Amino acid sequence: MSNLIADRGLRPLELPGGDHTAIGVASAISPDERESLADLLRALPGVSNVVHVSRPYKLASREFHAASTLVRLGDIVIGGNALTVMAGPCAIESRDQLLEAAHAVKASGAAVLRGGAFKPRTSPYSFQGLQKDGLKLLRDIGRETGLATVTEVIDPHDVDLVAAHADMLQIGARNMQNYSLLVAAGRSRKPVLLKRGPSATIDEFLFAAEYILHEGNDQIVLCERGVLPLDRTYTRNTLDVSAVPVLKEITHLPVIVDPSHATGHAHYVPAAALAAIAAGADGLIVEVHPDPRHALSDGQQSLTPAAFDALMDAVARVADAVDRRADWAATG
Amino acid sequence: MSNLIADRGLRPLELPGGDHTAIGVASAISPDERESLADLLRALPGVSNVVHVSRPYKLASREFHAASTLVRLGDIVIGGNALTVMAGPCAIESRDQLLEAAHAVKASGAAVLRGGAFKPRTSPYSFQGLQKDGLKLLRDIGRETGLATVTEVIDPHDVDLVAAHADMLQIGARNMQNYSLLVAAGRSRKPVLLKRGPSATIDEFLFAAEYILHEGNDQIVLCERGVLPLDRTYTRNTLDVSAVPVLKEITHLPVIVDPSHATGHAHYVPAAALAAIAAGADGLIVEVHPDPRHALSDGQQSLTPAAFDALMDAVARVADAVDRRADWAATG
Amino acid sequence: MSNLIADRGLRPLELPGGDHTAIGVASAISPDERESLADLLRALPGVSNVVHVSRPYKLASREFHAASTLVRLGDIVIGGNALTVMAGPCAIESRDQLLEAAHAVKASGAAVLRGGAFKPRTSPYSFQGLQKDGLKLLRDIGRETGLATVTEVIDPHDVDLVAAHADMLQIGARNMQNYSLLVAAGRSRKPVLLKRGPSATIDEFLFAAEYILHEGNDQIVLCERGVLPLDRTYTRNTLDVSAVPVLKEITHLPVIVDPSHATGHAHYVPAAALAAIAAGADGLIVEVHPDPRHALSDGQQSLTPAAFDALMDAVARVADAVDRRADWAATG
Amino acid sequence: MSNLIADRGLRPLELPGGDHTAIGVASAISPDERESLADLLRALPGVSNVVHVSRPYKLASREFHAASTLVRLGDIVIGGNALTVMAGPCAIESRDQLLEAAHAVKASGAAVLRGGAFKPRTSPYSFQGLQKDGLKLLRDIGRETGLATVTEVIDPHDVDLVAAHADMLQIGARNMQNYSLLVAAGRSRKPVLLKRGPSATIDEFLFAAEYILHEGNDQIVLCERGVLPLDRTYTRNTLDVSAVPVLKEITHLPVIVDPSHATGHAHYVPAAALAAIAAGADGLIVEVHPDPRHALSDGQQSLTPAAFDALMDAVARVADAVDRRADWAATG
Repeated sequence: MSNLIADRGLRPLELPGGDHTAIGVASAISPDERESLADLLRALPGVSNVVHVSRPYKLASREFHAASTLVRLGDIVIGGNALTVMAGPCAIESRDQLLEAAHAVKASGAAVLRGGAFKPRTSPYSFQGLQKDGLKLLRDIGRETGLATVTEVIDPHDVDLVAAHADMLQIGARNMQNYSLLVAAGRSRKPVLLKRGPSATIDEFLFAAEYILHEGNDQIVLCERGVLPLDRTYTRNTLDVSAVPVLKEITHLPVIVDPSHATGHAHYVPAAALAAIAAGADGLIVEVHPDPRHALSDGQQSLTPAAFDALMDAVARVADAVDRRADWAATG
Repeated sequence: MSNLIADRGLRPLELPGGDHTAIGVASAISPDERESLADLLRALPGVSNVVHVSRPYKLASREFHAASTLVRLGDIVIGGNALTVMAGPCAIESRDQLLEAAHAVKASGAAVLRGGAFKPRTSPYSFQGLQKDGLKLLRDIGRETGLATVTEVIDPHDVDLVAAHADMLQIGARNMQNYSLLVAAGRSRKPVLLKRGPSATIDEFLFAAEYILHEGNDQIVLCERGVLPLDRTYTRNTLDVSAVPVLKEITHLPVIVDPSHATGHAHYVPAAALAAIAAGADGLIVEVHPDPRHALSDGQQSLTPAAFDALMDAVARVADAVDRRADWAATG
Repeated sequence: MSNLIADRGLRPLELPGGDHTAIGVASAISPDERESLADLLRALPGVSNVVHVSRPYKLASREFHAASTLVRLGDIVIGGNALTVMAGPCAIESRDQLLEAAHAVKASGAAVLRGGAFKPRTSPYSFQGLQKDGLKLLRDIGRETGLATVTEVIDPHDVDLVAAHADMLQIGARNMQNYSLLVAAGRSRKPVLLKRGPSATIDEFLFAAEYILHEGNDQIVLCERGVLPLDRTYTRNTLDVSAVPVLKEITHLPVIVDPSHATGHAHYVPAAALAAIAAGADGLIVEVHPDPRHALSDGQQSLTPAAFDALMDAVARVADAVDRRADWAATG
Repeated sequence: MSNLIADRGLRPLELPGGDHTAIGVASAISPDERESLADLLRALPGVSNVVHVSRPYKLASREFHAASTLVRLGDIVIGGNALTVMAGPCAIESRDQLLEAAHAVKASGAAVLRGGAFKPRTSPYSFQGLQKDGLKLLRDIGRETGLATVTEVIDPHDVDLVAAHADMLQIGARNMQNYSLLVAAGRSRKPVLLKRGPSATIDEFLFAAEYILHEGNDQIVLCERGVLPLDRTYTRNTLDVSAVPVLKEITHLPVIVDPSHATGHAHYVPAAALAAIAAGADGLIVEVHPDPRHALSDGQQSLTPAAFDALMDAVARVADAVDRRADWAATG
């Protein structure tokens, strides 16, 4: 079939997908040519569908894949009607700290434990994370508490190591256009939490997802975490809450919001979190620390367990108002 | 008392307020000096309180005025527990258009009718509004339907004219730092809807309010309407939803959100509106047009009456989830 | 002729210009229709030219008016080969201050004296200018020293007053979309210095100029003065130096640069000023104060007379390198 | 000595540098404590100097290292009085293309040949570069023409490979905060061309350099290449020309400008390049392609050899006006 496309002087693109193979036609052609080519292609054996994808990214677009993609971490399903909350400390500091955080966030209804082992820090003099020891703590405490785990990977050659210890790989905002890392995460076939860069447009964000999809991995959760602010007097970033309905419309991938980085201050996190859910987000990732004032990283924006518990109740109420399930509240 | 301050080499500022006069001490002084001066001032006859206002704006800060200010348009109270929704067409085009819009938004629960008579347009070739005729239509239809009215004023010398026809003066985003206009609106003592400029920081926004307060007018509703976007591929602006909790914390003035300008597209307006309410906004201002496709201005972002009605139901549900009253739903 | 256009269902626009009248056809038409209409129009008596203007602004575009417009303040010509430098204090504070500044900037080669009488300030508690007294000082000292004068007007109803005292009206960055003010400045027929708003795109900037041109006034100098910075740690704004070649290509109006506001710090002003000239600017507007440390406004970014004198020598050298005349250096 | 610092409850930092070791004291201490500690340290054997570095980055600051650092590529010295120009195609496409470009840019005065072998592209469907074959072409043609070479590395595990083929490693804007890559480049001890991220503040930029310095490599050239634009109608980015004097003041590292990416359009490149030199840049990196219209990447912003030759003449004239040497012009 690719030959048939190439015969017309067009460029075929192999787009590996879940259980069928998509073949893109990337050249600019007229609407008339398009329809005539589409008719030909539809008639070929083994062709299930021919769609026109107007977006510059292809596999990430809803035009290409209309149904919402569900991302699975064991029993947890992200992107369906039920909301998923990931929570935990910015950085893993010790077994006690992580365990205390894990028990607390689980008790309040979180399904996924977050915690950084490799910390990308603006300054080389800031705490860089426990690295491999942190990964082991995360794996062990995840198992002990029955929480799925997510942690950041910052070097493509650490992908296998991180994938062996965590249920989900996080690609951080600074690395959104680190293509080696995106490709490595794509090849791993592990679920990926992809954070939007602070100055990335929606299209640049989806092109980053396209790099992962292009390697045959569609288990991607997109995360809006705030864009460049006008100034930093009151918030660290500007939560782009409208990105949620925009992304839900144009891509089939789940979308969650990180209100902790978006605002940078614990007392603004609840309002931002509720806004995200009201706007249609599929979940949240929230920084929670047993003792925020002594955190080695991002203490200012971390919730205490008590504040997180109150937030989860409020999230459940807003979820209900917008017809989304918050399963943790069912037991309440 | 001002003399007493000046004797210490400091600069006194007269800050006219509601029923008491505040006297600011604007110079930089040490904490020790401050306390000694505060003790002296507290002992003077007629001094009810001495507060330290750390913000650069003074009358607008909650440090200066802890209680939330209520803005009143007749029976309507903005800034209390109950939400207020303003709605109507971007531009007043005709009696029929405005009347149809007014009936529709009232039926769905809006309390205030919006409609532009003087239209600030980027291009001199765009429709500039019906001007004085538009004001009369707004006044008449407001009376007929029992809706309060708000409309934009763009020239300080039109303030009296607009104030004679509408219940509330709107100062648009482009004029947020038009100081002649702010002063004129302050002197009018009319309620003012002050929109944030698209590149205005929170402090610049509150300084604009300070100009109005400084003239003795505290009937100001702040309106977040989106800030500069990273690009305009999907939305016209970026809704800065975190500005809502920030403003609610640092100022006593009510805060509403304009999801129509913030997103620029009707199909994103509901998500942005619900996010605003979840984040703690005191209300909304929404563009509604009986026939958006033929609107003379901003048709793309205007809701149909049916879409607005559905939105108002959804707003009432989210309002309930965050313990705010949506009185229009009580009759439902 | 307008009838002929309207007969085709198109909308004619009267565009008053210098010594001929332009009639725009603002509707969207196909290229074929355009050519056929153009042929018809060219054949009419009194029609000197028919051009297609692809830009959304019309009178401001070089497509409409290919020759560079020269703006004249008495003998001074802005927009030709020779550079023009405007200089003086941010705010007029006293006769002595302005006179000392005027003598200094003239001695170094400036042709126009700047000085603010009406000061738009972010805070109502900052110095608001000497207002009418300031205008008189400016007029008197301009006459005494033989310098042309420019000063800001912030209220449309002050245009006549300011026009009676100064050779050129400045419209400040905050008022770039104050349409009442733009229209009043257009009607005055006085030369206008139009500053770009800090978040204004190039198109929005030229639309502001279009409002003035639309009133029949083409004596407009555009001024780039810095756009929103990524942060304000080192500079107050970000000088958009590329705006100079962009504007010189797409509009016929002269373009100057304000390195004082663009950087906000006196020690970065020379580099920014030289960059502007190297990029093709037609001149500069520079803040110079006899005693910057005691200035009532913007002291941090004001040059001393000695620093300004050194800058003017450096400007003359760079001007020569890019084949522009710096007439003040001819006497050196 | 580190013990002595730690005894006071402070945190010592080993800061490896050129021929001496710096030991930082990173804790917040009072000015009094600082002076007393400084006196103690100065008295110790082997201590050559004690300085207070107020900037958050340390090794990158001029407070720490007052003299300008010279970066050497063989005989070429970057950061002294003489300007250095790097030029060549965005992507290496073929031997013929690169050789033609190399001869052309050398003839016009460039000292370093640029050309991308590993291309970080927003879309996975865009040309990704010739990779290893491209590196070989660059090495061979550099040798044939006597030009030094610079090319981008995007994976930390390719650093050795790229270092074996090129004289200078480029770290691109998207990877400015790819810490694994910065560390690997630091360890390589190769000269590094570090490009500023499009939304990176000056401090974030210098922190990225600090990661490289921290590994003991001070052979770093900083490159300003444009920051996020207000919109992209006319330019791809906004050249932050004021970053040049800011960086020259606060860091000892050389600073060059990339006018090609900053503007995105060949016809604006000359103005941007001249502005950079006038503002004090130590050099330029310019995209030149023998046939820009058929380039596989960035053709729109590439100069033809003829346009580059004219630019180099103009650069030499402006260089002379600001007392900088343009050695290529000496033979003219």
